[in-house]
Amino acid sequence: MRNLRISQSRIADDLAALSAITDPGRPWTRRAFSPRFDEGRRWLAARFAAAGLAVTTDAGGNLLGRRAGSGALGTILLGSHSDTVPDGGRFDGVAGVVAALEVARMLNEHGLRLRHDLCVADFLAEEVSVFGVSCIGSRAMAGVRPDAWSGLEYQGRSLAQAIRDVGGDPDVSAKADDVKAFFELHIEQGLVLQNAATDLGLVTAIAGITRIEVTLTGRPDHAGTTPMDLRADALVAGAGLVTDIAAEAGRLAQLGSHFTATVGEFSITPGAANVVPGSVRLLIDARAVERPRIEGFIAWLQARLGQLPKGITAAHQILSDNPPTPMDPGLIALSEGAADRLGASRIRMASGAGHDAAFIARIAPAAMIFVPSLDGRSHCPEEFSEISDIALGAEVMAEAILAFDAQG
Amino acid sequence: MRNLRISQSRIADDLAALSAITDPGRPWTRRAFSPRFDEGRRWLAARFAAAGLAVTTDAGGNLLGRRAGSGALGTILLGSHSDTVPDGGRFDGVAGVVAALEVARMLNEHGLRLRHDLCVADFLAEEVSVFGVSCIGSRAMAGVRPDAWSGLEYQGRSLAQAIRDVGGDPDVSAKADDVKAFFELHIEQGLVLQNAATDLGLVTAIAGITRIEVTLTGRPDHAGTTPMDLRADALVAGAGLVTDIAAEAGRLAQLGSHFTATVGEFSITPGAANVVPGSVRLLIDARAVERPRIEGFIAWLQARLGQLPKGITAAHQILSDNPPTPMDPGLIALSEGAADRLGASRIRMASGAGHDAAFIARIAPAAMIFVPSLDGRSHCPEEFSEISDIALGAEVMAEAILAFDAQG
Repeated sequence: MRNLRISQSRIADDLAALSAITDPGRPWTRRAFSPRFDEGRRWLAARFAAAGLAVTTDAGGNLLGRRAGSGALGTILLGSHSDTVPDGGRFDGVAGVVAALEVARMLNEHGLRLRHDLCVADFLAEEVSVFGVSCIGSRAMAGVRPDAWSGLEYQGRSLAQAIRDVGGDPDVSAKADDVKAFFELHIEQGLVLQNAATDLGLVTAIAGITRIEVTLTGRPDHAGTTPMDLRADALVAGAGLVTDIAAEAGRLAQLGSHFTATVGEFSITPGAANVVPGSVRLLIDARAVERPRIEGFIAWLQARLGQLPKGITAAHQILSDNPPTPMDPGLIALSEGAADRLGASRIRMASGAGHDAAFIARIAPAAMIFVPSLDGRSHCPEEFSEISDIALGAEVMAEAILAFDAQG
Repeated sequence: MRNLRISQSRIADDLAALSAITDPGRPWTRRAFSPRFDEGRRWLAARFAAAGLAVTTDAGGNLLGRRAGSGALGTILLGSHSDTVPDGGRFDGVAGVVAALEVARMLNEHGLRLRHDLCVADFLAEEVSVFGVSCIGSRAMAGVRPDAWSGLEYQGRSLAQAIRDVGGDPDVSAKADDVKAFFELHIEQGLVLQNAATDLGLVTAIAGITRIEVTLTGRPDHAGTTPMDLRADALVAGAGLVTDIAAEAGRLAQLGSHFTATVGEFSITPGAANVVPGSVRLLIDARAVERPRIEGFIAWLQARLGQLPKGITAAHQILSDNPPTPMDPGLIALSEGAADRLGASRIRMASGAGHDAAFIARIAPAAMIFVPSLDGRSHCPEEFSEISDIALGAEVMAEAILAFDAQG
């Protein structure tokens, strides 16, 4: 065990306490805007206060704990989110909130005064919420939460009201204007660090996500009476397309930067045992940290849709298209230096998942530190990261913050 | 137009009258055990009686119209079913009932007495009924309706009660013991006759149907964070399997006898845009008129399931497995002779769909006469067959019955 200033036991205690706040019978579930979430927030607010932080909720519904600096240099922001997916894990988001809290505590404990203000954040609703949208708090802090979202409703409550209910104010701008640097520790949610037997990942960029819906239409015929050579089977056409998408994605992934393409939704109609499938709907999720890869993939897909079997027609539409977000090279370098001084092995890597950092990066230099996920599992009860890895990541984050504060 | 003894206009009138008895707004729907079905049955019973037939409902719930013969040689049975699928057609089943009725009327009209009794049948619930089972009446007449079916329930009514409600008696055997020959005219529900520009199809065998459920299990990973080469994507594996099933079915279909294999149900879990599919369920419907084809296909499938991508496991089970049913060579030859005398072009062909004849064939020599389906459409509102084709098929059926009666 390394000799850290960060306390592993405090991190362990905080993670255990938060994971105990879960919907009964569905571990681990603490979805944004639920009573459990409110309960977790109250626990966190008390914990922030106990660490000497000045606790507020901003207009965006983000829970903030502020520690004043000695100069008037602006704020170093650090944090992540405490909400979970349904039946989700104990680490996704939570690890980053607890690590940020522990950094503040460690600085207090060691009498390490910063020139910058330090602000620990629990961003509101990073996961896809009951309102169907995600990163609600970090979008607000970046000034890019769409106004139209206020009118979204779930079980008779509007998102605007739900933001009020957590202490925010949807009618007031929550855009932050004094953030000088943002650090987010997060579990990797993938297999890269485990496979590389490396302590930490320093994120170079957060992948952009493009979602493309494809519908293939054939002809729904009687499965018994229609000879094989007279069919226009949409499922067979869709199967060929899925095979080719996987192959093309594999090829693009080998070109050197992060690329994935996944068909995560796939349904057929009419879906009866004795009827040849008449149509197929695919939803493609394509992610890249280099924009030209996405553009190349879309061009490839459009060409591929022109080469369908006889009798099959295609329609497609791009449902959403978000560009990749590079992390700040200066903060990455500071984090690398910190890791090296602390003897933590590290690699640079892309984040295939979206994070609050992708929005905060719009208003400030941002960095992410990944800690390993056991077997890459995430968004499931089995999600697990070692406390020692989280503590090491927090220590590197603290060291990088100290370096930033010294140079700033 | 050929000079037929059969009346096209009476056939047209009967089809129009029956098609008008449909659930409003859902043409053409007259499902077994529904009030519409009962209304259709009452209309048919009156029509049978008007044709001089002695009308009864047997214990199996089949509506029968009997015409006495001059000898005590047993019965020539002919008919089909008047129930439809939801939003189904005006011809599937109904054409055969109306054609059988018209044969009886024509024999009366021309004073053609038979030595055999003639019995026109409307078999109960040939289509998959609300109770989830099909061919309820023809199974009963063949003595093979499972006893356990009596307990099936739909909206609080048992199948036993439903059979009573149409005039049958589920506690009494409905097995017929004096049928010497069975003829069923039916629409083809496929493209073979239209493509061959042929008047009639004489069915050599009704395909056996084997249903096989396959489940492929991979690993549900985060779509953004899991590199392409570290996935166990069940959908990609399932797509490869669908492609190969279609290719193998195409190969088997070219070996000379009817073979189809269709993946008609295909679903994935969890089915979320940002999650690599963890499992896939396929339902394969395989049909052949030669049993070794099915056995070969199952063996091929089992070998194929041993060649899945890394990380993918398979399970499969045969849900149902019904053998093919050959039609009677003597009745086929009689029908061919009848067609040739009447100048109707005809081919021998397999039936890929199941029919009441598959059950009646267990107790008597059976034959089926197919008439062309426009564009092969069936089980949909667009289903269409020409009245002149149905009339020609009925004429051939009548001629074959006269020939059988003469030789019997």
